[in-house]
Amino acid sequence: MVERIQLAHGSGGKLTADLIREVFYPSLGGVEKFANDSAVINLPACRIALTIDSFVINPIFFPGGNIGKLAFCGTVNDLAAAGAIPIALSASFILEEGLDISKLRLIVKSMGEISQKTGITVVAGDTKVVDKGSVDKLFITTAGIGIIPGGINYHPQNIQPGDHIIVSGTIGDHGYCLTALRAGIEIKSSIKSDCQPLHELVALLKPLGCAVHAARDATRGGVGMVLNEWSRQSGRGIVVYEKDLPIKDQVKGGCAMLGLEPIYLANEGKMVFAVDQRRSADALSLIKTHKMGRNAAVIGEVVDTKAQVVMETEWGTKRLLTAPHGEILPRVC
Amino acid sequence: MVERIQLAHGSGGKLTADLIREVFYPSLGGVEKFANDSAVINLPACRIALTIDSFVINPIFFPGGNIGKLAFCGTVNDLAAAGAIPIALSASFILEEGLDISKLRLIVKSMGEISQKTGITVVAGDTKVVDKGSVDKLFITTAGIGIIPGGINYHPQNIQPGDHIIVSGTIGDHGYCLTALRAGIEIKSSIKSDCQPLHELVALLKPLGCAVHAARDATRGGVGMVLNEWSRQSGRGIVVYEKDLPIKDQVKGGCAMLGLEPIYLANEGKMVFAVDQRRSADALSLIKTHKMGRNAAVIGEVVDTKAQVVMETEWGTKRLLTAPHGEILPRVC
Repeated sequence: MVERIQLAHGSGGKLTADLIREVFYPSLGGVEKFANDSAVINLPACRIALTIDSFVINPIFFPGGNIGKLAFCGTVNDLAAAGAIPIALSASFILEEGLDISKLRLIVKSMGEISQKTGITVVAGDTKVVDKGSVDKLFITTAGIGIIPGGINYHPQNIQPGDHIIVSGTIGDHGYCLTALRAGIEIKSSIKSDCQPLHELVALLKPLGCAVHAARDATRGGVGMVLNEWSRQSGRGIVVYEKDLPIKDQVKGGCAMLGLEPIYLANEGKMVFAVDQRRSADALSLIKTHKMGRNAAVIGEVVDTKAQVVMETEWGTKRLLTAPHGEILPRVC
Repeated sequence: MVERIQLAHGSGGKLTADLIREVFYPSLGGVEKFANDSAVINLPACRIALTIDSFVINPIFFPGGNIGKLAFCGTVNDLAAAGAIPIALSASFILEEGLDISKLRLIVKSMGEISQKTGITVVAGDTKVVDKGSVDKLFITTAGIGIIPGGINYHPQNIQPGDHIIVSGTIGDHGYCLTALRAGIEIKSSIKSDCQPLHELVALLKPLGCAVHAARDATRGGVGMVLNEWSRQSGRGIVVYEKDLPIKDQVKGGCAMLGLEPIYLANEGKMVFAVDQRRSADALSLIKTHKMGRNAAVIGEVVDTKAQVVMETEWGTKRLLTAPHGEILPRVC
C-alpha cells in the first residue's frame, strides 16, 4: 500500500514526530542531533554568508537529480558564490496532502547522501503539510550559512574593465534537460541536469584572493542573466565571445531546434567568475584541476563602455544580450 | 486595475527585478543593501543559532496580523527560544500566478514595519512564482541567525525535577482566532492573534543565566505539545495545573463550545520556560515587566516520574495530557 502524506502529518503532533523520525532523521542526522527549533553552532570571529532559496521545480525527479539534491546544491552554490565555506544548512519542507511518502523518502535520502559526501550538515528543519491542491507535491526551501575566509571579497562592485569572465563548464545543461523532459522529446537524450555542489571548486581559487572579483552560480536566466546583473551592478560593459561558450553539441542542436539560447538556460552546477586578467590563466588552470571544472573557459571580458552586455557571434557580428524580460521556462528550480 | 503576479515575475529576468525593486526593497531595505545571493555579516567569535520555518497560514490576513508578520515573528521567536539575540533574517517567497500584488505589498510592508520596530533586518531573499493552482496564494519561508550570549544554554536536556514551568501570557489566542475566523463565528470576537516578537522578553532573563533550563515558543500543538516534547526529551514527568493556565474568558468559552482545548491551540507570541525553582519567582517578575509578559504565570512543574505530562484539572482530578496524534487545525502557521 502506498503511504501518503496526511494533513495530520503537519499538525506538530505525534504523526509529525513520526514522519520526522522515520523519513528525515535517517538521512539528515544533523537535524536529529539538534532536535530543537534552532540549531546552535560555535563560530570563530568571522564574516559569514547567509542565503535562502525556495525550490519549486516540476517535475520533482529529473535526469541527474531531484528537488532535494537541487535544494542542497543550490544553497551550497549560493554560499560558494560569496566565497564562503559552507558550515550548515537548514531545510523546510511544504508537503501536499496525499504525497507518496516513498517519494519524499527518496528525496530526503538524496539530500542525506550529498550531505555525507560534502560533509555539510542540515542542522535545522521544518515540515508543513497543506491540503491537497494547495501546493504541487512538495516545495523545499533551504537556507545556509558559511564562513568567508580572510582576503576573500567577491562582489559585483569589484568588477573592473579588463576582467576576464570565466565559466566553470558547459552551459545550459539543466535548462535543456528540463525542457526536453517536458516536451517529451529525446527521451533517450544523454543530457542530464548538471546539479552539483561547487564549493570545493570555488575554494580552489582561495590562493588568488581578491584577484577574483565576483562569482555567481548561473541558475534561472542562465549566464546571460548573471552578466546582465553584473553589468548593471558594476556599471561596466561586458563582451561575450559566442565561439568560446562551452556548450554540449546535443544542447546546441536541441536549442537550435527549439528556438532557445543556451546562454539564457538555467544551470545548477556552473559558476561564473570575474577575475583580474593578470590572474585569469591561473584561475582557469585551478578550476580545470577540479572534475567539475574540466570544461571551464574564458568566455568574455569586462570593457570600459556603458553598462551593457554585447555578444560577438560566431559570424563576427555583434548583438546586445539583454536581460530576459519574462519567463523562459517556468519552475526549473 | 488589479496588478497580478505573472509567471514571468519568477523568471529571474527583468520582471523579477522589477518586482523585487518595487515591492520588496521599499520595505525590506536589508535585502537591497546586500543584493547578492548571499548576504555577508561580520560576527565575533560566538555561538550562533540557526533556524528555518515555512508559513502556509490560511487565510493570509487575519485579526492581529498576516502571513508576513507571522513569518517574521515566528523566526525571531525560534531564535529567542534558543536564548539568541536575533542578528538577521532571510525570507523566501513562493507566489501563485495571479496573486494580487497589492496584497503582497501589504504583507511585505508589515514585515518591513516589524523589521524597523525590532531593528532586525531581512538581509537575503528569494522569490519564486508557480503556475495558478500550484500553490495557495503565497507561502513564506524565513530563516534566521542569532548570537547566543555567554552563560546561556537553553535545551530540554537541562530540564530537572523541581523546575517550574512558566508561560509568558494567555494561551490559545492565535489558534482560537483562526478557528473562529474559519467557522465564521463571533465575527465581532475581540480575540486577535497574539503574533508578536518575543526576543526582548526572553533577553530580560539573561541575568538568570543557566537557571533558565529551556524555552520554546508554543506554536503548532500549543503548550500541550511543548510539554510533551520536553517530557520526552528530558525523560522527566511534568505536572500542569489547569487552574493556573492563563486563558482569556472568550477563548475559554469559545473552546468549550467548539470542543477544543486551549492548551493544544497554537500561539504565535507565547514562550514556555522551564526554570530552576529557586529562580522561578525572579524569572516571573522579570517577564511581567515586559508588556508582552503581563499575564505570565507558573503553570506547572517538572517531577521525578516517568516521562509523561499530567494535568491536574480544576476539579482536582488528574488526566494524561498526551501529544495530539494528528491535525487539530490545519494551516494555522
